[in-house]
Amino acid sequence: MNYRFSDASNNTPKSFIREILKLTQSDEIISFAGGLPNKAFFPIAAIEAATVKVLENDGANALQYSTTEGYLPLREFIANRYKSRGVHVDPKNILITTGSQQALDLLGKAFLNKGDYVCLERPSYLGAIQAFQMFQPQFQEVDLTATGIDLPELEQQMAAKQAKFLYAIPNFQNPTGLTYSLESRQNLAEYLKRSGNLMVEDDPYGELRFIGEHLPNVYSFAPENVILLGSFSKVCAPGMRIGWMVANDAVMERLVTAKQASDLHTPILTQRILAQYLADNSLDEHIKTIQAAYFEQRQAMVEALHQYMPEGVTFTEPEGGMFLWVTLPKNCPAMSLFPIAVKHKVAFVPGEPFSTEGKTSYDIRMSFCTVDAATIVEGVKRLAAAIAELTNQNQTDNQTVTI
Amino acid sequence: MNYRFSDASNNTPKSFIREILKLTQSDEIISFAGGLPNKAFFPIAAIEAATVKVLENDGANALQYSTTEGYLPLREFIANRYKSRGVHVDPKNILITTGSQQALDLLGKAFLNKGDYVCLERPSYLGAIQAFQMFQPQFQEVDLTATGIDLPELEQQMAAKQAKFLYAIPNFQNPTGLTYSLESRQNLAEYLKRSGNLMVEDDPYGELRFIGEHLPNVYSFAPENVILLGSFSKVCAPGMRIGWMVANDAVMERLVTAKQASDLHTPILTQRILAQYLADNSLDEHIKTIQAAYFEQRQAMVEALHQYMPEGVTFTEPEGGMFLWVTLPKNCPAMSLFPIAVKHKVAFVPGEPFSTEGKTSYDIRMSFCTVDAATIVEGVKRLAAAIAELTNQNQTDNQTVTI
Repeated sequence: MNYRFSDASNNTPKSFIREILKLTQSDEIISFAGGLPNKAFFPIAAIEAATVKVLENDGANALQYSTTEGYLPLREFIANRYKSRGVHVDPKNILITTGSQQALDLLGKAFLNKGDYVCLERPSYLGAIQAFQMFQPQFQEVDLTATGIDLPELEQQMAAKQAKFLYAIPNFQNPTGLTYSLESRQNLAEYLKRSGNLMVEDDPYGELRFIGEHLPNVYSFAPENVILLGSFSKVCAPGMRIGWMVANDAVMERLVTAKQASDLHTPILTQRILAQYLADNSLDEHIKTIQAAYFEQRQAMVEALHQYMPEGVTFTEPEGGMFLWVTLPKNCPAMSLFPIAVKHKVAFVPGEPFSTEGKTSYDIRMSFCTVDAATIVEGVKRLAAAIAELTNQNQTDNQTVTI
Repeated sequence: MNYRFSDASNNTPKSFIREILKLTQSDEIISFAGGLPNKAFFPIAAIEAATVKVLENDGANALQYSTTEGYLPLREFIANRYKSRGVHVDPKNILITTGSQQALDLLGKAFLNKGDYVCLERPSYLGAIQAFQMFQPQFQEVDLTATGIDLPELEQQMAAKQAKFLYAIPNFQNPTGLTYSLESRQNLAEYLKRSGNLMVEDDPYGELRFIGEHLPNVYSFAPENVILLGSFSKVCAPGMRIGWMVANDAVMERLVTAKQASDLHTPILTQRILAQYLADNSLDEHIKTIQAAYFEQRQAMVEALHQYMPEGVTFTEPEGGMFLWVTLPKNCPAMSLFPIAVKHKVAFVPGEPFSTEGKTSYDIRMSFCTVDAATIVEGVKRLAAAIAELTNQNQTDNQTVTI
């Protein structure tokens, strides 16, 4: 049988990171590759109690079809949480999604024609690239600096390419861990308003800050020009697949229609369980536990990198989130390092899938959230050994060539 | 702010049935409009027990990220269920989806370019039309008879339009309640194999047969040429949003990539709860309860229609499923009847959204699954009164015109 697949499907490669994760599932390998939250912090008992309550009090409605927009008390909880940070969001402008990955798919449906441009940070989140790719846009990357996106370059590219939107992660970016300064957020918002352009602000990690003060979302400065995404995956549990989008009325209407075509609605059972959990427990207290643990793990990784990395290696030192970004020496391509690292029983994600430009990457993404501090130190030592092996090998190769 | 939406979004109307359901949510209205399972049959206590077991035994993994393909024991359960009907399906060829609505979205992603043709039954399921519309195909409808799709017409149209696939619901079709005969299934399968064409066989109602014998899926005669969809929404609970697709290796690979871009994976918590429920309870026994109730309700509706409908009204008498299809007299357009019916405090879905041809419909879809037999009889009486009012009104109008 000769299957006639769509162009979108023919042009979408298998997920790079899925293939990598398959290689690194051995218990012997210390993996900094996956973005999995540490499951030691899942509130299992509290979720069990919430489930029993929901099913005993209102089981039939928790198992029936429900509204596409999502469970209203959950949307109200999210609105109140924004309110506590001084941001006004009406619950009617919140759409519950099946994880924030679905939000990216709905944005593709609502905004992207084949060939349209999307601006991304350089580098950008691979899951967003993958979701948007299904709609066959063109991508334009814009430099990401230590304080935010390069605004002059962004202005020039958005105008030249008539890009449909900028997709960016201003808090503890995936993959770099970088965070936009307050000034950078304000300037970006001013630019969006002035030019009438649209930004998708993805914020799954914003609550996971362990150094410095919370900074307002770009959304708070330009609510008409920003669609804001959030998620419970990193602060509660990813296995429930509950995220959300904040958008104004005109955009909401399109997103709701797209969502109905996609899965009718996010499972109401998990929405009800989560809403009950949030009503009966303090999310703030829970987040403090996660922050403390990830901070300790982040410290362990940063210190170990300072101690064990050879000269020529640089890395970011994130104020929150789950990842940091290591830049290798120029004789150390990330994809060449990967198999050697696996041989040394340590894994990471090479930089390639975080870019649409197809260049050789000398960067790697390291997650500090999944394993404990002692394991992190051991893993960084192994990484240093792998880099040393590749560097020596390359030097030998170079000598061979010059002889 | 001037939002630049996609062509797909601009061309997709708001969901017709959502708008209708809003009009019919008053408790005074007897609604035959929605396709909601009767929630009296949701196994609430058993699902609660299953949840407690899952969270106490393996809570951390039930709340962590999981595989895109779905929870293996759930896929094995589905494979075993096919096996008990003599159909061989390997669990690796089953993809768990977020409701079977998502299966339709994934099919669009994997197969449809803008402008491609899709063949549909005339009439067809509105949720499928809506999902496919996001990919901007063209539709070609083919007559549906009392024993199956019109095969000569299908062959001619599939060839002329080079259609990517036929989408059809051979068991207790939504909206008509019609079922393909065994011969019709075999002939369709032979045609698919002979021509190398693809069929999407949607089967959410196949287990809800209360008259006659189970008939094999078209898939069982032509597994290379058929992608088979199933769902737990109608036999367990829709609020968990768990459906599945059966496809061979080459197609699975594309579907998995599309699914990962769409929501990474279906919530593992609900998959685990459902798998535990299915391991600890008899689905067959549960389905018998649903079948008995829906059969009684179907009998009540068929008898009441025979008794109260005026001459010129015809209707299908389904052997299973949730819906029947009423054809009104030619002076009784479904959309004209709708507001009069709502005034008489009864609701249905007019035929228009089940077609892509934009013609005036004289058909209405009636669900017999949501309300009990006595309420059904009262609702049919109200419908008869509404038809009488519209017919009289039209006769008066005609007299006025001829004077």
